[in-house]
Formats: sequence, C-alpha cells, structure tokens
Amino acid sequence: MSKALVILSGGQDSTTCAAIACQQFDEVHAVTFDYGQRHAIEIESAEAVARSLNLASHEIISMGRVLKGSSPLVSDTHLGTYDKPDQLPGGVEPTFVPGRNLLFMTIAANRAAVLGIRDIFTGLCQEDFGGYHDCRAVFVAAMQTAIGEGFYGDPDYFTFHTPLMNLNKADSVKLAFETIGSDDFNHLFSLTHTCYAGVKGGCGRCHACILRDRGFHEAGVDDPLWQLRAIAA
Amino acid sequence: MSKALVILSGGQDSTTCAAIACQQFDEVHAVTFDYGQRHAIEIESAEAVARSLNLASHEIISMGRVLKGSSPLVSDTHLGTYDKPDQLPGGVEPTFVPGRNLLFMTIAANRAAVLGIRDIFTGLCQEDFGGYHDCRAVFVAAMQTAIGEGFYGDPDYFTFHTPLMNLNKADSVKLAFETIGSDDFNHLFSLTHTCYAGVKGGCGRCHACILRDRGFHEAGVDDPLWQLRAIAA
Repeated sequence: MSKALVILSGGQDSTTCAAIACQQFDEVHAVTFDYGQRHAIEIESAEAVARSLNLASHEIISMGRVLKGSSPLVSDTHLGTYDKPDQLPGGVEPTFVPGRNLLFMTIAANRAAVLGIRDIFTGLCQEDFGGYHDCRAVFVAAMQTAIGEGFYGDPDYFTFHTPLMNLNKADSVKLAFETIGSDDFNHLFSLTHTCYAGVKGGCGRCHACILRDRGFHEAGVDDPLWQLRAIAA
Repeated sequence: MSKALVILSGGQDSTTCAAIACQQFDEVHAVTFDYGQRHAIEIESAEAVARSLNLASHEIISMGRVLKGSSPLVSDTHLGTYDKPDQLPGGVEPTFVPGRNLLFMTIAANRAAVLGIRDIFTGLCQEDFGGYHDCRAVFVAAMQTAIGEGFYGDPDYFTFHTPLMNLNKADSVKLAFETIGSDDFNHLFSLTHTCYAGVKGGCGRCHACILRDRGFHEAGVDDPLWQLRAIAA
C-alpha cells in the first residue's frame, strides 16, 4: 500500500497535485495550514477538495500568526489590484511571507513521519513564482536535504514531488484537465479558491486572479469559477 | 552597529550562546518558542536570562502544538528517569520531536529578516546530542542553505553560529564559566532551567539533569542549581 501526503491549500495548483497523487499512490493524506491568512474561504475550499477526492485523511493545522512580515496576507497592509498581467510588479511580490514554505514543508514532514509516509506533494512552481524564492526547485532540493538530515540523518529520506515546478499556469491547467477529465475537472475546480481578496469565484483583479485567468485563457479551458463570478456580478 | 539574534530556551546551552553573542555583537535580540512544552518554567527562565543579559528585545513565540510525535515533551507519554549516565538509552531519545529545530530555525530567521539581522546563534551541540539528528553540524549547514535560498535566493545569506557544536557538556560549562566570569556565571546560571521534569533546580534524574550534572562535575564547576535543589530536598 503506497502512501503520500499532499500540502493542500485549496488553490488550483495544490488541487492539481492532490489529483495527481491520487493517481500515483494508493492512499493519499492531506494537510492544510491556517497561519492567520486573511480568508477562511481557503480552508473551506481545501476541505471540499479533500472530500471530493476522497482522501484518507485531511488535517487543518492551525498555528496562529507565527510568521511576521509586511505581506498583506498576514497583516493589514494594502493588497494591490491590477487590470492586466503586464501591470503586475516585478521582483519579490509584496505578498511574500518569509519562511512560509519552509514552515509548511517542515510541519508536513512531521505529519508524514507520524503517518509513515516518505512522499510529499506540493504545488510549488518556479515558472510564475512572482519572485518567491521559496518556490524554486533549488530551494525545494535544499529543503528536502535539510529535512531528511534533520529527521532521520538521511538527506534522501523524503521526496518532495513538485509536478508543476516548471509549468506555466496554462500548462498547469492543461495538465489538470487531462489528469482529471473534463467532468470531474469542472466539479473539482469549482471547489478551488485562488483569490487573494477572498472573493468567492475570484475578484478578477488581484495578482492571483490575474494569473489564474490568464492561465485558463491561454490553455483554452473554461474556469468553472467564471460562472460563479458571473452570477455574483 | 552589529546585530545578532539568539534562539533562547532558558537552558544552559542557549544561555551560554546568548552570553557569547553579547560579547561579539553590539545589539543582541532573542526569541523563545512556546510549542506546547510541558513546563512554563522554561519560558520564565528564558525571560530571566534575557533581562539579566540586558538583551535589546526578547519575543516569546507561541505556536501551540503544531508538531506531533510520541515525545513526552509534547504528549502525555512517560518520561524516563535514570540514576546514572550509563543508564541513558542509546539511539534517538524518546524526547525527540521530529522537526523541532527546523521549525525554530525557520521562525528565528523570519524574525531576523524583520529585524535586519543575518547572524543567528543556537546552542545546538552534536557532541552529546542523544541521537537527535537535527542537532548535528551537517544538518545545521543544510538548513542554513535551505533558509538562505528560501528567504533571499542566497544560500549564504544567514550564518547560524553554533559555538557549542563540538563541545561536550564539561567543555561547554568551562567555556561559559570563562566567558562570563565566576560572579556573573553564578547569577546567570542560577536562572537557567534544564530539567525535562520541570522541577525548579532540577529533578536530578531525567536525561537532561543527568547530562547537566555530569558536565558540571567533569568541569569541576559548582552548578548554582545544586543549592536550589539542596534547599528543596
């Protein structure tokens, strides 16, 4: 019985990873982090996705605001809005929370250790990582080594699977569509949440919505969230 | 103005590191983690040490029981007691909490980033690490790389100072004694707490007390905690 753990945020990337893990492993568990992010809707999306994929277990790990920084995701500073992708800022996005993915990977590995799991999936992607240093392959490799050393004195003990690492959002949408199949895709992706502003169906103007919309457009796939957004408008 | 951050537990090793950092840097900050450990006395010790050393800031970071495992430090399982050092178990101690030092180093680096600090001190020691994989130099080096990559895309951005890494407890006591001087040493070390069982002055029979006692005996230095223990007995 092969087992894997997925770091599930309820967004499109981690949902895609969960679907891929379910095809490759017999038993898939998930963890979702509540680290004081602005919107409970993310947690609800993760729960809905986990139920829909019939995962073996799903734990919401609440840890308060242990990370500090100026990011609007963990503070009350202003969240930028944009009309088009070419307006997005370069460099490290203001939404960067220093240490976030290190924390997620460490605690996920703790749960994997408890569950006897060595394979961990995360939706990290360096293709359009918006300047997040902790989304790059070189970081994941370094962290995998550190975690293996720290937990078991074996740098190769854990394998962090990052099937989206080198895909742009359009290719990522295509991969999800092909992996899941059109019927299940529409249902599963209607459960996901991406919007930084916490608007159900997406505000369409935050950094995350802009990237998601562009990905679906370029992939030639309709985002089931667009229907929700149209109804709300 | 040079600045450093110390991961301060209130035990003898991190207290020694804090004293060393104060000699090497102009401004020293500290963080202490409250991760659901059994005893509030550890936090009180850290606060007393930070006040005594006149640190620039001291933050207690509370994060609940985000780590799981069978360790008696985070669960209700039995804590072993011993009469002599040669009774201590080999291999990984039952007190090992998988991921603990990874979490501490990550969150410490987050605070360092916010404070504009690149030098972080920790009392990790591989000499008598009791089988804790995350106390070894090879782990600290891997984690330093992962954190630098994840925060700034620079594997050498942070330096984790581990002045006790290769010292046994006796040499560590001697180093503290020489660094601090006998008068201040007695006061500062009377504030520290080491005992896993949470007994003020030390129970003298848990793994941590056994190692501390042996270190002071071998160093030929009186532990100011012995007086407290004698008074309590």
